[in-house]
Amino acid sequence: MNTIASDIQDMAIRGKKAARSLVTLSTKAKNKVLLQMAAAIDARRDFIQEENKKDLEAAKTKGLSSAMLDRLKLSDSVIESMMAGLEEVAALPDPVGEVEKMNKRPNGLLVGRMRVPLGVIGMIYESRPNVTVDAAALCLKAGNAIILRGGSEAIHSNRALAKILQDVLAEEAITPDAIQVIAVTDREAVTAMLTQEEHIDLIIPRGGEGLIRFVSETSQIPVLKHYKGVCHIYVDADADLAQATPVIINSKTQRPGVCNALEGLLINKSIAEDYLPSLVEELKKHGVKILGCKNAIKIVSDIVPATESDWGTEFLNLTLCLKIVDDMDEAISYIYTHGSRHTEIILTENYTNAQRFINEVDASAVMVNSSTRFNDGGQLGLGTEIGISTTKLHAYGPMGLEELTTRKFIVYGQGQVRT
Amino acid sequence: MNTIASDIQDMAIRGKKAARSLVTLSTKAKNKVLLQMAAAIDARRDFIQEENKKDLEAAKTKGLSSAMLDRLKLSDSVIESMMAGLEEVAALPDPVGEVEKMNKRPNGLLVGRMRVPLGVIGMIYESRPNVTVDAAALCLKAGNAIILRGGSEAIHSNRALAKILQDVLAEEAITPDAIQVIAVTDREAVTAMLTQEEHIDLIIPRGGEGLIRFVSETSQIPVLKHYKGVCHIYVDADADLAQATPVIINSKTQRPGVCNALEGLLINKSIAEDYLPSLVEELKKHGVKILGCKNAIKIVSDIVPATESDWGTEFLNLTLCLKIVDDMDEAISYIYTHGSRHTEIILTENYTNAQRFINEVDASAVMVNSSTRFNDGGQLGLGTEIGISTTKLHAYGPMGLEELTTRKFIVYGQGQVRT
Repeated sequence: MNTIASDIQDMAIRGKKAARSLVTLSTKAKNKVLLQMAAAIDARRDFIQEENKKDLEAAKTKGLSSAMLDRLKLSDSVIESMMAGLEEVAALPDPVGEVEKMNKRPNGLLVGRMRVPLGVIGMIYESRPNVTVDAAALCLKAGNAIILRGGSEAIHSNRALAKILQDVLAEEAITPDAIQVIAVTDREAVTAMLTQEEHIDLIIPRGGEGLIRFVSETSQIPVLKHYKGVCHIYVDADADLAQATPVIINSKTQRPGVCNALEGLLINKSIAEDYLPSLVEELKKHGVKILGCKNAIKIVSDIVPATESDWGTEFLNLTLCLKIVDDMDEAISYIYTHGSRHTEIILTENYTNAQRFINEVDASAVMVNSSTRFNDGGQLGLGTEIGISTTKLHAYGPMGLEELTTRKFIVYGQGQVRT
Repeated sequence: MNTIASDIQDMAIRGKKAARSLVTLSTKAKNKVLLQMAAAIDARRDFIQEENKKDLEAAKTKGLSSAMLDRLKLSDSVIESMMAGLEEVAALPDPVGEVEKMNKRPNGLLVGRMRVPLGVIGMIYESRPNVTVDAAALCLKAGNAIILRGGSEAIHSNRALAKILQDVLAEEAITPDAIQVIAVTDREAVTAMLTQEEHIDLIIPRGGEGLIRFVSETSQIPVLKHYKGVCHIYVDADADLAQATPVIINSKTQRPGVCNALEGLLINKSIAEDYLPSLVEELKKHGVKILGCKNAIKIVSDIVPATESDWGTEFLNLTLCLKIVDDMDEAISYIYTHGSRHTEIILTENYTNAQRFINEVDASAVMVNSSTRFNDGGQLGLGTEIGISTTKLHAYGPMGLEELTTRKFIVYGQGQVRT
């Protein structure tokens, strides 16, 4: 084993040991630490921004895009949002130790399931250094140790933030190994991390599809992830069209670069002729470029024809695919074929169609008469999220504190034996 | 791709297609099919036993042990237990479609989580052909398609059972691809199956540690498994000793060859001198061979000294490791080091120790004053089980119908947009 691999293994072993001590940390103690972390970030703002400057300068030298620089920058407002994030997580209910119900078995055994931490979480992410703080806060609150591997372009920022968090842990007599940042930027460190299945319980990758595929294919550890968000809205024959337009505009344009933005619009043929002209006009007003099917072009001529490979594409910009479908069956089949099991919407006033769509469509969030943009941990009531999973095992959809735990069986007996 | 790999891929694709059609199958329809399967197994008992005979004869020729032959044999009583299993699964509540609660968000969105099938389950198991029927029944009830890969020694029995189940599916106009058995015995078929991550959602291996490690290391698909069950009982200073002895005897001897049998006994030193002689006598009466620590041998001289490698061993026979510990801290540390996160028990009348053990010990089932043998889906109230997981992701402990499903978010809106 070379130096990098053995360093990573040491970190994983230390993480496992830290995780054991976090299991019994009280909610009060965890909340206190989280609030002190917020205060420490505030107090050491200059240090953070100095270190961040090193990353920004290196990024400029490398010629990174202004969008990339923007994501990298720890401005005052980003620092304040990290602090607010820590305070929010402190305010959330602690899932650890929760027993939803217990049942008495016929032999008198009292059986329940208690929420317990997962153990050690490995987080692999790109550019945004604020993820370092957000992910560490969620993992700590759920009683897990975390090993963070951020992008090389944010290495100074990530190390500075981790240092501040670890200093607070040490002040509170909690092992700093509860929050570790991998300090080397070699890709080998990721590969080494993904083989630590004895010590790391879960890997969460966040970033581009390439990174996530690499992690998923290499890892010996379970991975929760989504590759992409190809989200659809189906406008049913019975949709309330006055309501439909703002929902479509919001889904597509409110933040087009994120995974829960709209990428494909399906319109029932019975309303297409009446509805399309005004909808397309509104979309164009918002700068949306439409790639349409042949039948759509027959109705609104100045739509760009979609090619076969456009269907199911995650554009992450103001491009939208538009297809006229014969009926709901075709819409559901289209989503089955082209969707990414992320977010799927029906707009309808028809009760039966709404219920059928909810029951039959397979996606992490299936919604009626709502913008796609609500598939988000905060919006759905989880408080906040560490990511969204389109994997069906363990978590499907946004992952909050509860998804960073598991449930063990607990049993209270009086000397029962099995016969 | 060679013939075996491409055949397996075809099966996986057909399984995925079948899974889609099972999502909307009603509980009534599923229960009807399960009961008809029980009737069909009864009616075609001769066919089953004829095919089973082929396996038994081949096994005899190969010189398999009588224990193996016993596990392979589909006797009348095994056939009746398969029928009873189908009837039990039909009687269990259907988890699919369950929404435990819904919450109204401040913006009026009504948000809940609905249980949905996982999709396609791959089951890899050894010798016992009755697993074919038990696993198929659970998967079908939870709305999943299943691909079964049994041991080569049971191939005729497994094919016969699958044929009967598939005939019933066809009679009920359900695609027979919902229950598929891999008909070739080459190991390559397993390897090919484990690469079908696009079409198979979960792999459950059951068998020896070697098989499970092979599956786990090879699979691109999430695997739920336990490698072994190294279960402990800690007899606290405040244990009710009259209650302790029958619990220990039951845990060790009721069925020593299974994963929830007792393998390690930890005794608080303050009671060891008084308690050990009578306990050892009782264990010996039940044929238990004890491997003890030095201090135990000082008290009862005719105990075999344990070697370092004995601690944490899964014996699966009447051998038991016995260690005297200074206190509960040492017991918990011992379990942390030598346990397999399967089943851990404290025997005590001390309230604080009971609660501390429940909270601090990391295992799929942590119990007070109970036999280890209760860590079983049926015994803990799941109805029945498809296996036990010591993986923390998705399921920890026995896996019943609920663990064969996941939860998607469902949202009912009135045209909400995100601001």
